[in-house]
Amino acid sequence: MAFGLLNTVLEKSETLLGSDHASVVSMNLFVALLGACIVLGHLLEETRWMNESITALIIGSCTGIVILLISGGKSSRILVFSEDLFFIYLLPPIIFNAGFQVKKKQFFRNFMTIMLFGAIGTLISFAIISLGAMHFFEKMNIGDLTISDYLAIGAIFSATDSVCTLQVLNKDDTPLLYSLVFGEGVVNDATSVVLFNAIQRFDLTHINSTIVMEFAGNFFSLFILSTALGVAAGLLSAFTIKKLYFGKIKHSTDREVALMMLIAYLSYMLAELFHLSSILTVFFCGITMSHYTWHNVTEKSKVTTKHTFAALSFLAEIFIFLYVGMDALDIEKWDVVRNSPGQSIGVSAILLGLILLGRAAFVFPLSFLSNLTKSSPDEKIDWKKQVTIWWAGLMRGAVSMALAYNQFTTSGHTKLLGNAIMITSTITVVLFSTVVFGLLTKPLVKHLQPPSNKPSTPTSSFTETLLNRDGDGSYIENHEPLHRTQGQSDYILDHPITLAMFWNTPSRAIHHYWRKFDNAVMRRTFGGRGVSTVVPGSPIDTSVQQLWIEDVEDKEQHGEP
Amino acid sequence: MAFGLLNTVLEKSETLLGSDHASVVSMNLFVALLGACIVLGHLLEETRWMNESITALIIGSCTGIVILLISGGKSSRILVFSEDLFFIYLLPPIIFNAGFQVKKKQFFRNFMTIMLFGAIGTLISFAIISLGAMHFFEKMNIGDLTISDYLAIGAIFSATDSVCTLQVLNKDDTPLLYSLVFGEGVVNDATSVVLFNAIQRFDLTHINSTIVMEFAGNFFSLFILSTALGVAAGLLSAFTIKKLYFGKIKHSTDREVALMMLIAYLSYMLAELFHLSSILTVFFCGITMSHYTWHNVTEKSKVTTKHTFAALSFLAEIFIFLYVGMDALDIEKWDVVRNSPGQSIGVSAILLGLILLGRAAFVFPLSFLSNLTKSSPDEKIDWKKQVTIWWAGLMRGAVSMALAYNQFTTSGHTKLLGNAIMITSTITVVLFSTVVFGLLTKPLVKHLQPPSNKPSTPTSSFTETLLNRDGDGSYIENHEPLHRTQGQSDYILDHPITLAMFWNTPSRAIHHYWRKFDNAVMRRTFGGRGVSTVVPGSPIDTSVQQLWIEDVEDKEQHGEP
Repeated sequence: MAFGLLNTVLEKSETLLGSDHASVVSMNLFVALLGACIVLGHLLEETRWMNESITALIIGSCTGIVILLISGGKSSRILVFSEDLFFIYLLPPIIFNAGFQVKKKQFFRNFMTIMLFGAIGTLISFAIISLGAMHFFEKMNIGDLTISDYLAIGAIFSATDSVCTLQVLNKDDTPLLYSLVFGEGVVNDATSVVLFNAIQRFDLTHINSTIVMEFAGNFFSLFILSTALGVAAGLLSAFTIKKLYFGKIKHSTDREVALMMLIAYLSYMLAELFHLSSILTVFFCGITMSHYTWHNVTEKSKVTTKHTFAALSFLAEIFIFLYVGMDALDIEKWDVVRNSPGQSIGVSAILLGLILLGRAAFVFPLSFLSNLTKSSPDEKIDWKKQVTIWWAGLMRGAVSMALAYNQFTTSGHTKLLGNAIMITSTITVVLFSTVVFGLLTKPLVKHLQPPSNKPSTPTSSFTETLLNRDGDGSYIENHEPLHRTQGQSDYILDHPITLAMFWNTPSRAIHHYWRKFDNAVMRRTFGGRGVSTVVPGSPIDTSVQQLWIEDVEDKEQHGEP
Repeated sequence: MAFGLLNTVLEKSETLLGSDHASVVSMNLFVALLGACIVLGHLLEETRWMNESITALIIGSCTGIVILLISGGKSSRILVFSEDLFFIYLLPPIIFNAGFQVKKKQFFRNFMTIMLFGAIGTLISFAIISLGAMHFFEKMNIGDLTISDYLAIGAIFSATDSVCTLQVLNKDDTPLLYSLVFGEGVVNDATSVVLFNAIQRFDLTHINSTIVMEFAGNFFSLFILSTALGVAAGLLSAFTIKKLYFGKIKHSTDREVALMMLIAYLSYMLAELFHLSSILTVFFCGITMSHYTWHNVTEKSKVTTKHTFAALSFLAEIFIFLYVGMDALDIEKWDVVRNSPGQSIGVSAILLGLILLGRAAFVFPLSFLSNLTKSSPDEKIDWKKQVTIWWAGLMRGAVSMALAYNQFTTSGHTKLLGNAIMITSTITVVLFSTVVFGLLTKPLVKHLQPPSNKPSTPTSSFTETLLNRDGDGSYIENHEPLHRTQGQSDYILDHPITLAMFWNTPSRAIHHYWRKFDNAVMRRTFGGRGVSTVVPGSPIDTSVQQLWIEDVEDKEQHGEP
């Protein structure tokens, strides 16, 4: 459907190409494509290989080809990539949502390890890629690249894109791994951007110890100030909402939601104002908000904010991948490098190699270091987890693209060979790593981290039905699993819940606990018949179960016991 | 707080006035002011006179004065008003939300009356204001105004802004009145914009019957096609979500919410693409989505979409009033008219008079016509309601401003006396009508439509506590009102609910009904003790009550029995 529309729309756009109208046309097309990505991504969800990022990337490329053919080879783009669009509108919701949805308990428990991977690891990877690029590219005769360019290349290709892996990892089956990959991904993004900005600001042609010291001082003060600003903004929102107690009056949910959105955005803009790292600020603002503000708002505000931020982040991610896919085919960029395809492929291959190496060079040693400090075997990172973490950071995405554009296209597309090669190589690396590494991720993760088959399996089918239905009551008439427990004893604590149960399948364990508790309460209250006697479809029945679900989900979401 | 920030920020902005940085500063300031408006608007909620629009307008003006003083009289604006910003980003969420939250039952029951007021009434008002302006202004020597200008003036000042009144009217106490004012407001906006566009498109210097016929045909085809597109987009979203059945899988809520946002925006952009009335399209898309799509999504999607759209609309409204307040003091606009203050005041006064007259000229006759077709006295519009409807449409707001900018500032602020006077008069009319008429609205509505004091008052305190708490469970431990019913009979239908109860306080009546029903069900199920015996604080207790609340609210929201 979207492609039928595309044709009509593009024909129209050629006849009516006033600049205003053209932008209306391209916005229509883009919105329709975003919708198509969601629908197709959903339809492909079941397959073993695909995920939403790859779907969007492929749809973007196909659209690019179609536009290229229709426009007679002139252009494949319907929107001009703007750094502002990316850094002001698309990145903040993604990073904020990452902070807002993070499992705080896991995040803070593994705080040191995450910081080790995210900050120190990124610096190691940056150093290896920069030095490697300097070593190889100087021999390849690809135009004048300054020392700043080489350092920028290191920062550009240190910025991982762990969205793909996160779509595959199960946060209930492997909470440690999930939190490490998730946390590292965000801290890594922030570190790369801070590094990149520091490189652009300092004159690094003559490196001496003073400059290195200043550089390091700048880097760490940025890190600390940005975090502090984010935490302060989060606390301000919590204080305002708690103090004013919006819940008392009508329309309070709308006000609370509006205020949370505003303060989140304000934290981002304030960081920009004070030249701090807005990514880091908005991430810690998200964490603080979910930890303090979220508990002071109404139930409806909780549901609304949780899902609104997730939906906006989801849209922004798809938007980015769709754009990258479409932009990859822009003919102008390939014009300059057309005469030297070997060089371009060589550069891309070297960069991919350096990425693999740079990541291996910190994941395995730092995991070893981290394991030295842990006593419990559950907290140690075994080699399968190490490989998964290594793999999860191999994808390169929109952050790399945005930084590369910033460094190598000062005024539109430059005609300099060096810059042109770096842009096309970045595109190649992003496409290759996202599609090829991305497609291999699902099978690899399944192989390394097989889904757990724990004794609670009979319960889990019911739990999953409920949870997957996302709080809607329509599955609830299925009472079979409830009857299944009738033979067991119904008193609380007669089947103590082991720590291992919580560890491996926290949601199931909690649900298990809740059902027992409810049975016991209802037995005492209503005459010893337990939950299974509730009239199917009656308000009590569905609402009690809904309470379980919400409780279980909130616990999962916010990582509190 | 916001003003302390303002000072620091502005000092900073003067030293660092790079254009990028300046825009970051103004965005920070604007976001902080929006937050201040929400907080102050909340604090002033209790007072008899204020509402959020007036608060935002006053905060905007004060900010304007402060900026004017700091910048030494150069400028009072931190954002340049852009029609695109208004028509693409601010208006769609407001109008879509209006459609999404409309009480459909009331809306469709009064459809003919609403259309009569919204379409025919606006045309009458347009004719009177245009003719009156032509009659008076030609004698006043205020520069060259063409016939198109006079017609545009009619369209500009026919566009009402009923937000103020709606904040005061209670949709439960006066459902008929609320739906009339609400529906008329939206149809009126659409009619004015369609009219305005038609005026700009046609050459109206030589009016003859052919042109009038063409004009009318254009107007009505726009009306019908726009409505059809909106309904089609809404149905598409319902079909997609129902067919794909997102609810089955994980993260379905995020996808559903994202898809609903996308399709709503797509309907708006498609209307722009085909040169239809995007306001009308997005309004009917909202109605269709709340009628069909909303019932096919998960519970969490329902809560999320309802409150997200409301919050976005709320933010957009405050943004507009804040901007209008700030823009009103822009010194440049007042420069030209400074030498002829009498003329400017005269024009504003005449326009205000014409607005009062133009509205009276259709509200009272059309109400009389509408009453002829109704048999039940409940459906008739008595004179108090007529006065309220007349008053509700006297405020002029952002739509008038945007249209006036479009007509009278072709390239920045024109230096022509006629245009300058029209712009300043529009600002004067908008400020005066919003602040003066707006401040009088609460007392007037209270006088004309006193809040009902019906026998259900003892129940209402409990209901209101629950409803006002917006679904949060924290008030629920107060069981007093439940005990109060123990003396009464608990069977269903032994106290038939009168129509008058539903009419005056539908939420209370429904709640009453629900409590009876629940008591009876629980009695049968759990051994005859009814709700009041539930263990306080147990999951069943809170969740049953929460179900009531949600049910009552949803019914109110979507007007279904």
